[in-house]
Amino acid sequence: MTTPAYDALTATFTRLYRYQHLAAIASWDQAAMMPPQGNEARSAAMAELHMLMHQTLTDPAMTAQLQAAQQENLTDWDRANLHEMQRDWEYSLVMPAHLVEAKSLAGSRCEHAWRTQRKTHDWQGFLDNFREVVRLSREEAQVLSQAQGLSPYDALMAKYEPGTQSAHIERIFGDVKQWLPGLIQRVRDKQASESFTPAQGPFPVEKQRALGLAVMEVLGFDFSAGRLDVSTHPFCGGVAQDVRITTRYSEEDFMRSMMGVVHETGHARYEQNLPRAWAHLPVGRARSMGIHESQSLAFEMQLGRSPAFLQLIAPLIRQHLGDQSAFEPSNLARIYTRVAPGFIRVDADELCYPAHVILRFEIERALVNDDIAPDDIPALWDEKMMAYLGVDTRGNYRDGCLQDIHWTDGSFGYFPSYTLGAMYAAQYFNTLRQATPDLDAQVARGDLSSIFNWLQNHIWSQASRWATPELVERATGESLNPAHFKRHLEQRYLGI
Amino acid sequence: MTTPAYDALTATFTRLYRYQHLAAIASWDQAAMMPPQGNEARSAAMAELHMLMHQTLTDPAMTAQLQAAQQENLTDWDRANLHEMQRDWEYSLVMPAHLVEAKSLAGSRCEHAWRTQRKTHDWQGFLDNFREVVRLSREEAQVLSQAQGLSPYDALMAKYEPGTQSAHIERIFGDVKQWLPGLIQRVRDKQASESFTPAQGPFPVEKQRALGLAVMEVLGFDFSAGRLDVSTHPFCGGVAQDVRITTRYSEEDFMRSMMGVVHETGHARYEQNLPRAWAHLPVGRARSMGIHESQSLAFEMQLGRSPAFLQLIAPLIRQHLGDQSAFEPSNLARIYTRVAPGFIRVDADELCYPAHVILRFEIERALVNDDIAPDDIPALWDEKMMAYLGVDTRGNYRDGCLQDIHWTDGSFGYFPSYTLGAMYAAQYFNTLRQATPDLDAQVARGDLSSIFNWLQNHIWSQASRWATPELVERATGESLNPAHFKRHLEQRYLGI
Repeated sequence: MTTPAYDALTATFTRLYRYQHLAAIASWDQAAMMPPQGNEARSAAMAELHMLMHQTLTDPAMTAQLQAAQQENLTDWDRANLHEMQRDWEYSLVMPAHLVEAKSLAGSRCEHAWRTQRKTHDWQGFLDNFREVVRLSREEAQVLSQAQGLSPYDALMAKYEPGTQSAHIERIFGDVKQWLPGLIQRVRDKQASESFTPAQGPFPVEKQRALGLAVMEVLGFDFSAGRLDVSTHPFCGGVAQDVRITTRYSEEDFMRSMMGVVHETGHARYEQNLPRAWAHLPVGRARSMGIHESQSLAFEMQLGRSPAFLQLIAPLIRQHLGDQSAFEPSNLARIYTRVAPGFIRVDADELCYPAHVILRFEIERALVNDDIAPDDIPALWDEKMMAYLGVDTRGNYRDGCLQDIHWTDGSFGYFPSYTLGAMYAAQYFNTLRQATPDLDAQVARGDLSSIFNWLQNHIWSQASRWATPELVERATGESLNPAHFKRHLEQRYLGI
Repeated sequence: MTTPAYDALTATFTRLYRYQHLAAIASWDQAAMMPPQGNEARSAAMAELHMLMHQTLTDPAMTAQLQAAQQENLTDWDRANLHEMQRDWEYSLVMPAHLVEAKSLAGSRCEHAWRTQRKTHDWQGFLDNFREVVRLSREEAQVLSQAQGLSPYDALMAKYEPGTQSAHIERIFGDVKQWLPGLIQRVRDKQASESFTPAQGPFPVEKQRALGLAVMEVLGFDFSAGRLDVSTHPFCGGVAQDVRITTRYSEEDFMRSMMGVVHETGHARYEQNLPRAWAHLPVGRARSMGIHESQSLAFEMQLGRSPAFLQLIAPLIRQHLGDQSAFEPSNLARIYTRVAPGFIRVDADELCYPAHVILRFEIERALVNDDIAPDDIPALWDEKMMAYLGVDTRGNYRDGCLQDIHWTDGSFGYFPSYTLGAMYAAQYFNTLRQATPDLDAQVARGDLSSIFNWLQNHIWSQASRWATPELVERATGESLNPAHFKRHLEQRYLGI
């Protein structure tokens, strides 16, 4: 039986996938390689490409093709693929072309200027560009909201976490806000009497890089299909066949960069192990940003900060950075589980991290829903940082509301993905540990195959075959259950 | 007075310029950054982009717009711009879309495999891909030949050196073949009794890189608008606002890499100083590849190997690589003007270089014109290397006919640009030295402004405003005159 409409769609989406390839590489280059004078021409080229993709997706022929394809005889994977095509199409159809172009240009401008404004605490200069980013994001949210019958913020969040609504997030986060401050306090009281030996720098960048590459190797990164580079804000980019992860180095502290590399390697292995036969079609993409973060946080939090893993890599640290008593596995574990509220989200410990996310979620939702103005952000930031973490950020824009890249180009709705990811990751490891009681012993002797096989079978190989709740249920026997996350934290940090 | 047709063309060509930006960055990445597994998806994405550009250029509306714009009231620069638009359009119009795609894919495949085949002397493996590249290039040459009334080879050469025909090149090269072998012999006889001190390695790559950057700084490279990286085959790529040059390092020999950097910096300064107001339109591009090579060779040969320049940079060499008697300026000059026939074109001295180019010109012309088959290349190569340079290349594919990147993706017709460039550069410096009798003294004390100002005024700022012969005549008072090149060589190498 032939499937002409579906085949026509497949041809169009293959073309889109190739445009997306160029966008991904140019975007990685913009963050990791491009000198400053290149930004204006690059921004114009990126906006042109975004317009082209939008135009391709809104080709009038597609309406009839999507309808006709529904009636064709498709495999389950093809049908899931058609569903993802439909989702992309619906998003583009309601977006006016001028808005696609304006958002792309305003985002590039704001993000690029932010790189220097952040360093100089220049919140007012940032506002000049950021107001336009907010205005356009609200316009996008309005348009999507009307088409999808969601609140404006939920409509943006659906780009990263389709099917999850902010009322659900609010319930989950509301619960976390109940128990997290008390837990942080109990852990801090407990850790007050625990001593640890800090690592003594400086650690030359080249040696840190070599260590990072060695750890990536342990974690199964395929270097014939990816790279490690440097950028202001670490990320995982590129394409599935050629994954580009980045980190940043401080000569005083190798531990943050090293764990950052573990985090990005989690993202990278997801991308590198998506089913290659579907790479050129929407169903072959990663499921959602929450699932993506569940991979990076499975690597960074569940595996990376476990005593067994630190025991495994301690010899690598010694090999690359020399011998120090700080590199004793038990001491490394004490450092990597030390709880101490601080300014910076990406440097936060596992317990404080959700507080950083909840704060951002609350502010960005109010901003997109037009309940607050961009000018209101610093005061709200200061207030919530004090309330949730007891940290004073007044006047410190660099380490306060200017610290993240996400808002600079209007990626509102992304932040919840981090904590959802942490929760999914805890849920996976609960399942995994039940099936593999000697998991830690395996890890300690360098056998990570149980973890990789489980992720390969349940997450990586499934790509966008299932909606997120079904994916998680098939993997763990239940949909998202934050209790696993809480139990993991209590177990690791209080031993209960 | 309004110019609606011209304005419409300007909008289309601005779009093309942005696509070209993405192609340039993705292509740089492919050569300098991309891991091997990325090549298949990258090749598909690049082919898609080439198809898109072809489709944009062959939009049926353009025919009427180009005609109407001829009647509009345009400035001289606009008219030159229109001429370049017309040239791009004529090229695309006769090229079938399937050929654009097939050439792009076959070129990517052949070039990528060549990187490993070259190392292992795998001429037979190379032929498997190369035959298809030749077949498609011949098809392209036929199509262009019929449209333009040129021979097939001339039609390809016109892409790099518009207006120059191979009969003219053949006369010039025929003359060079008369006097070059004798000159090489006289210089070698003279140099047989001259001693020099070779530099003693190893020279760590990081130190060589730092030296390269320092030399680029002396040469006025704008680091806020460009980068230096590493690739198998050195090149200058990227875009005018963000120029990417590459080199390659050998720990035993810093001198080749350093002079390679000087060469690419010549290309880079041309790109970085093209008139920014025209950057997005065809008239704003570099004039031709012969003029491009005239910039790199003005830097590398005329300036870079002059005693005055070597005196200027000798302290930088000492600063980065330590002190050696080999770094005495006069010794450096002896090394950089040492004449010794060898296998590799890019490592050839100034006298042997034209022989490498003439050999390639003769072979590629015969190949494109269907007078020889791809299988005939090695025997011809061996024969001509022996005849022109007395070098035996039999069986040595790596250092013989597999050494260059140009043929791997079908860039036939490019090679003559190198020797035309060397000749233009000699002609520029003849003019420049007449206007600035103390040029060497200026260079030796670090004042390169006479050279940069002359190039800025006569070449860089002119972009594609004039056809090549007129550009050169305006700059030097006469069109191409190879006698300047010959005199330069006799003067530098025999002191006559």
